Amino acid sequence: MNTTTNTMNLLRRYLPILTWGAEYSCRTFTNDLVVACIVTVMLIPQSLAYAMLAGLPPEIGLYASMAPLILYAIFGTSRTLAVGPVAVASLMTAAAVGQVASQGTPEYYGAAIALAMVSGLLLLAMGLLRLGFLANFLSHPVISGFITASGIQIAAGQFAPVLGIKAHGETFFDLIQSIVPNLININPYTAAIGLTSLVFLFWVRSGFKPLLLKLGFSERPAGLLAKAGPALAIVVTTVTVWGLGLVDHGVKIVGTVPQGLPSLALPPLDVALWMTILVPALLISVVGYVESISVALTLAAKRRQRVDPDQELIALGMSNVGSAISGGFPVTGGFSRSVVNFDAGAETPAAGAFTAIGIAIATLFLTPLLYFLPSATLAATIIVAVLSLVDIGAIKRTYSYSKTDFAAMAATILLTLAEGVEIGLIAGVSLSIFLHLYRTSKPHIATVGQLPGTMNFRNESRHTVVTDPEILSLRIDASLYFPNARFVEDYINNAVAAKPLVRHVILECPAVNTIDASALESLEAINHRLKDGGIMLHLSEVKGPVMDSLKRSHFLHELTGKVHLTQYDAIASINPDLAQTTLETARVSSSIHT
Amino acid sequence: MNTTTNTMNLLRRYLPILTWGAEYSCRTFTNDLVVACIVTVMLIPQSLAYAMLAGLPPEIGLYASMAPLILYAIFGTSRTLAVGPVAVASLMTAAAVGQVASQGTPEYYGAAIALAMVSGLLLLAMGLLRLGFLANFLSHPVISGFITASGIQIAAGQFAPVLGIKAHGETFFDLIQSIVPNLININPYTAAIGLTSLVFLFWVRSGFKPLLLKLGFSERPAGLLAKAGPALAIVVTTVTVWGLGLVDHGVKIVGTVPQGLPSLALPPLDVALWMTILVPALLISVVGYVESISVALTLAAKRRQRVDPDQELIALGMSNVGSAISGGFPVTGGFSRSVVNFDAGAETPAAGAFTAIGIAIATLFLTPLLYFLPSATLAATIIVAVLSLVDIGAIKRTYSYSKTDFAAMAATILLTLAEGVEIGLIAGVSLSIFLHLYRTSKPHIATVGQLPGTMNFRNESRHTVVTDPEILSLRIDASLYFPNARFVEDYINNAVAAKPLVRHVILECPAVNTIDASALESLEAINHRLKDGGIMLHLSEVKGPVMDSLKRSHFLHELTGKVHLTQYDAIASINPDLAQTTLETARVSSSIHT
Repeated sequence: MNTTTNTMNLLRRYLPILTWGAEYSCRTFTNDLVVACIVTVMLIPQSLAYAMLAGLPPEIGLYASMAPLILYAIFGTSRTLAVGPVAVASLMTAAAVGQVASQGTPEYYGAAIALAMVSGLLLLAMGLLRLGFLANFLSHPVISGFITASGIQIAAGQFAPVLGIKAHGETFFDLIQSIVPNLININPYTAAIGLTSLVFLFWVRSGFKPLLLKLGFSERPAGLLAKAGPALAIVVTTVTVWGLGLVDHGVKIVGTVPQGLPSLALPPLDVALWMTILVPALLISVVGYVESISVALTLAAKRRQRVDPDQELIALGMSNVGSAISGGFPVTGGFSRSVVNFDAGAETPAAGAFTAIGIAIATLFLTPLLYFLPSATLAATIIVAVLSLVDIGAIKRTYSYSKTDFAAMAATILLTLAEGVEIGLIAGVSLSIFLHLYRTSKPHIATVGQLPGTMNFRNESRHTVVTDPEILSLRIDASLYFPNARFVEDYINNAVAAKPLVRHVILECPAVNTIDASALESLEAINHRLKDGGIMLHLSEVKGPVMDSLKRSHFLHELTGKVHLTQYDAIASINPDLAQTTLETARVSSSIHT
Repeated sequence: MNTTTNTMNLLRRYLPILTWGAEYSCRTFTNDLVVACIVTVMLIPQSLAYAMLAGLPPEIGLYASMAPLILYAIFGTSRTLAVGPVAVASLMTAAAVGQVASQGTPEYYGAAIALAMVSGLLLLAMGLLRLGFLANFLSHPVISGFITASGIQIAAGQFAPVLGIKAHGETFFDLIQSIVPNLININPYTAAIGLTSLVFLFWVRSGFKPLLLKLGFSERPAGLLAKAGPALAIVVTTVTVWGLGLVDHGVKIVGTVPQGLPSLALPPLDVALWMTILVPALLISVVGYVESISVALTLAAKRRQRVDPDQELIALGMSNVGSAISGGFPVTGGFSRSVVNFDAGAETPAAGAFTAIGIAIATLFLTPLLYFLPSATLAATIIVAVLSLVDIGAIKRTYSYSKTDFAAMAATILLTLAEGVEIGLIAGVSLSIFLHLYRTSKPHIATVGQLPGTMNFRNESRHTVVTDPEILSLRIDASLYFPNARFVEDYINNAVAAKPLVRHVILECPAVNTIDASALESLEAINHRLKDGGIMLHLSEVKGPVMDSLKRSHFLHELTGKVHLTQYDAIASINPDLAQTTLETARVSSSIHT
């Protein structure tokens, strides 16, 4: 019985579908079905565009929008997250796969599938090992800088198809160098379609919804119809190219998109290839996860739902493995598609599964209609989508808030633009972790003294306090563990060397939550060295759990001084007169804020 | 004038010799000279033995004991640290160089010199960039486990020359596998010399000093004479081998040691070789630095002297560069030699410089006397020296103090023995950093309530406190920065999802020393999400500097609630009746220790 309950709980944890599926009703079904229709219309152009951005044939984008949605519906904990190809992951895919094969070759396509597979397996492993916290080390300024730089690079790259010229380059600066001299080769027909689409799509973002409202539509349908702008642009430009025979004037079109569903196949276990793409796969996984989880948390909060970050890793992992098996490329939870899904009123992940069916129907029957779709329109769709990723406000805010964070952000942006997505991201993350390690290795230590008229002790550099030249009281404002243990040793060693009169050192420990084995050895070394110098070491305000662990060591037996309940007790036991006199003194000056 | 003072201060910082040299007197000179004679006698056998351990000709050990000592005297901040070849660094040298060349070849010797050079340059760079804190990430359990495992491996390796058999293997297990089947080939003459030396040297450690004291020697000369045990063993066994003609019976001897000083030459800039040995060089640098700085700090504390960790990096860097230029291998500050130096009464680093002159004189004139020195004696010297590195007590103490720390230690020991020094050390450090990142990414958050009868708030799981079901008060026991920002987001999200009645969240921030840009964005996201769920966010007990930086952002304008001076004020402004009633209630039960 108990075992059955445990098994059910475990199943429910790893298969959230069992939870929401049990409450699934006919009403929810109808609702999710309507949502799926809306999202499908929006997803088709997006999927085609992101496949193009990743350097892949358009149908691959459709393939990546089927299996992942169904798998996320089974394993995901967010009710409204929509997974599929997204801009940044597509750019990263192009960068990673471009290093192992040339665009248009079967090897290129194979490597993109392998990338989804490896990325999925990494996400699964991180989820099962509960390593979601690793994504935290991608700090906000780094991820925000990276996404801004990626957006700029993607937009720059898509200007070439919008204008009907050729361009290549893996970094922003390469792209610019390649586009500028080619500007004389602009194809006027392509440029007309591309630029018109671009202007239309920008207008749709801001002007279409107010127009619909004016025409008498109510708020929600107006908002959703506005999201269908890209689909409208595609229909109009496709008809134009077909009707005016613009292919003869050099307008590039999508051409034949194979009809039918992808065949399912495990990608070949090519260890050499997998090892080559391991680092890019890890970066795509982590960036995709961070994007996905923040969208999921934002949407969940609106309805006070829970999202389990570790289970999300498993769900995204399964989605990517599913994408690879069905011939797709790396996917993640996207912001724009999830918002559409949410706004359309999706109640359960079933809406996603139904969307997958919608895309499947489109893939089966509608692809011939895409034959005359101009690449310029897809490129315009991408530009409009990614420019919303460029967040100049975030750069300004970070600059005014913290120069350290701004430095990490600026380094990430510049390196991403100059050296490409992988180097930019790795540099940003390394810099963040380095700064983090640096920061945690130097905890704040305050020399404290008694506040006249009180039993309280405060930082002597911020308050007028009373100290005894024979007593050095240090308040350590951090847990003691190996990254800062030696710093504390050095600090005390130097502080004592600078004050030859000192006979007692008191460490005030109200902020010390743990003392690990390294810090314990450091404390022993400090005690030992102070003893050699004729100085006693005392502790005060040691927390209960810390005291418990100290009792498991020999430190308390070797300690030359005592452990005092409060800092006042410590001073009072060493120099009772001073403690008492100070307590009875009126405070000489008002204190600054702690 | 001011510029001159600044220049002098800068010179004094980077050239500590200017400080102690200015006070150097005739009395100090005589004293340092006596110390140098004592240390020289002890260093000669040690230098020969460690060169053998590193797989190098014996004279290289002498070369590595000259220039580094003089350079340390100029650049070092410890008055008594003695640099030179040490056991662990020699083992690591053998492991690193063994990967690029075979022992006995000129390439092997060249690689050892290159290793000293690269290691020196890395230390210099770390010193100039003030990166000494990186060494902190070698936690005590990891370094202690690593040194214990290295000691075991070195001792195992030296049993072969003690017994006169051949053995090879880069790891402990390989060595054992290679020694055991060879035990039938023991050379009885070699074994007689080797085992006798071994027993004698063990006895000298404990029994010689008491004997000398009994013979009427006073404490200090008895202690120092006992340190000359290895020199005595060398003299006696050398004479024995020569007198009894044991070379004809297969006893291996040191043979010809070239007379004369090493020629000075910059090692060739072989970029490919340098890149190959970069990681081993970094490991040797960091391990050497950690050993050296802890010896330096311990000795400095006894006389209340200062040691500058960053300048120590520069001094060790110069010592290694000097070692490389004078044909030596990697060196560092050694424990045993420094203790002898200290006990003999060294007052300034000049004692080290004079020791270098002593070694130079020995190299010029005494090397022919080393011809018949049996390798077995040197091996016995090494075994006795390294067994003191094996610290079983530390393993036991770590086990009883902290299981996490013990896990890192056990992994380091087992991997060092099974896979070699480099893999063992890298695994240990990686594991430590991983555990550190994990720990800092999950800060302690307590749900707090008002302690009846007081204005104080305590953890509701440790104390009997009063809470309001509409108010969730969380005390965050850490600074808020990117590694833990998302955890706090998740935590609050889940806490609110679990308590549907909550209308106010109060974050109590007395332990928050900084809020970085990532945490600020998380706070904004929390505020935004809570607002969507109809919940107000408040802060309390925000520190002055943190408040200053929050004022530079838009957060305070967007905050749905208020920033309260104290947690009591926060509750009192939301539910004044409850706060007042609780304040007036007698405490219902005594509290557990905070």
